[in-house]
Amino acid sequence: MTVNTDKKKALVVLSGGQDSTTCLFWAIRQFGQDNVQAITFDYGQRHRVELESAANVAAFARVNHVCLPINTFSALGGDALTDAGVEVASDTDTETGLPNTFVPGRNLIFMTFAAAWAWPRKIGNLVTGVAQTDYSGYPDCRTDTMQSLQQTLRLGMESEVLIHAPLMNLSKKETVLLAAELGALDAMAFTHTCYNGARPPCGECAACLLRAKGFAEAGVADPLLGG
Amino acid sequence: MTVNTDKKKALVVLSGGQDSTTCLFWAIRQFGQDNVQAITFDYGQRHRVELESAANVAAFARVNHVCLPINTFSALGGDALTDAGVEVASDTDTETGLPNTFVPGRNLIFMTFAAAWAWPRKIGNLVTGVAQTDYSGYPDCRTDTMQSLQQTLRLGMESEVLIHAPLMNLSKKETVLLAAELGALDAMAFTHTCYNGARPPCGECAACLLRAKGFAEAGVADPLLGG
Repeated sequence: MTVNTDKKKALVVLSGGQDSTTCLFWAIRQFGQDNVQAITFDYGQRHRVELESAANVAAFARVNHVCLPINTFSALGGDALTDAGVEVASDTDTETGLPNTFVPGRNLIFMTFAAAWAWPRKIGNLVTGVAQTDYSGYPDCRTDTMQSLQQTLRLGMESEVLIHAPLMNLSKKETVLLAAELGALDAMAFTHTCYNGARPPCGECAACLLRAKGFAEAGVADPLLGG
Repeated sequence: MTVNTDKKKALVVLSGGQDSTTCLFWAIRQFGQDNVQAITFDYGQRHRVELESAANVAAFARVNHVCLPINTFSALGGDALTDAGVEVASDTDTETGLPNTFVPGRNLIFMTFAAAWAWPRKIGNLVTGVAQTDYSGYPDCRTDTMQSLQQTLRLGMESEVLIHAPLMNLSKKETVLLAAELGALDAMAFTHTCYNGARPPCGECAACLLRAKGFAEAGVADPLLGG
């Protein structure tokens, strides 16, 4: 027996960054202001400013927001995003070909817990800001992974849940242009991107450079930089 | 680029129950004593005796054992296994057709975290005690779900990990006979099954009745009952 979900309701996985913030505004346009909620995971990220950013973005967008704890990743250890003993490396690991900011299974876990939260509430749509363009090669951000995960969630929870990844095939430039079209640019002032947790952003890490490149190519000033 | 895994190494998700204990001995026979490790999740289960059981089973089997915390399920709330305010119901929910011991996504999360733990250690095999026979109808215990999850994990982590569910199509009787064949019966004295957390087991809950039926049909005394 399949649990009937409400196909009008959506849950956005909101990290507090530029991409998930754009997705929140995409979801509001797609599903309507009153049908959208946001979920953030406190997974022990070194930069607690991300959690503040997510809360501020959700408040600015006037959507319900829940923050769930996940204490497991820091128990796993060994990655640069949750382990204070590991510095963010500028290049990829020679053996795995992946950046050391790769946390195995991170997006799989986020989406599965989002689906678990959505399940009793019959929320039929999950929205994520993952993209396979212009990125560092995280395998859990790709279309094939998300399609497979959607099938796994539908089977494992007997639900009709859909995963939406509206930025999947957009470049950073296109994501900025989409944010502008959605009226989401003002919200960008509340977002956080910097891998080094700096505020104002360091401007030098891979995440800052990628963000700056996108805004520059779109010909839009980044509100985070007071532009 | 796919991360090369060691196809000789296995990680068993060990709950401390009869089924995962049988799987641990299956894995030891399949992969060899020195190639098997066990992982248990402290996900806020009401009955802490399960964690002791898992540790005791692993010690008895002489395998390395790690216990990882997951504090997210209790934050989700609303199910009978982690929420002290919810009693185990004897029948299924009329709307969803699922028992109220169903925690949405529980096995998906366990297997994904197990894969995340296995990933840097290059462990190529995950073993789980889920079964689709004789059970209460948990959708995350079925072959199609596990096959889909395996594909999701392989894509999302760029690995060649394999999921093994050796009990998938066995009845409880057949699981007891397998345990006997594997020399795993003595370990059953350390296991925990009872939904009510009782020790000695209550003998009346659905889990106790299912276990008793399996041993009775196999014609084997349950070591847990001092038989």
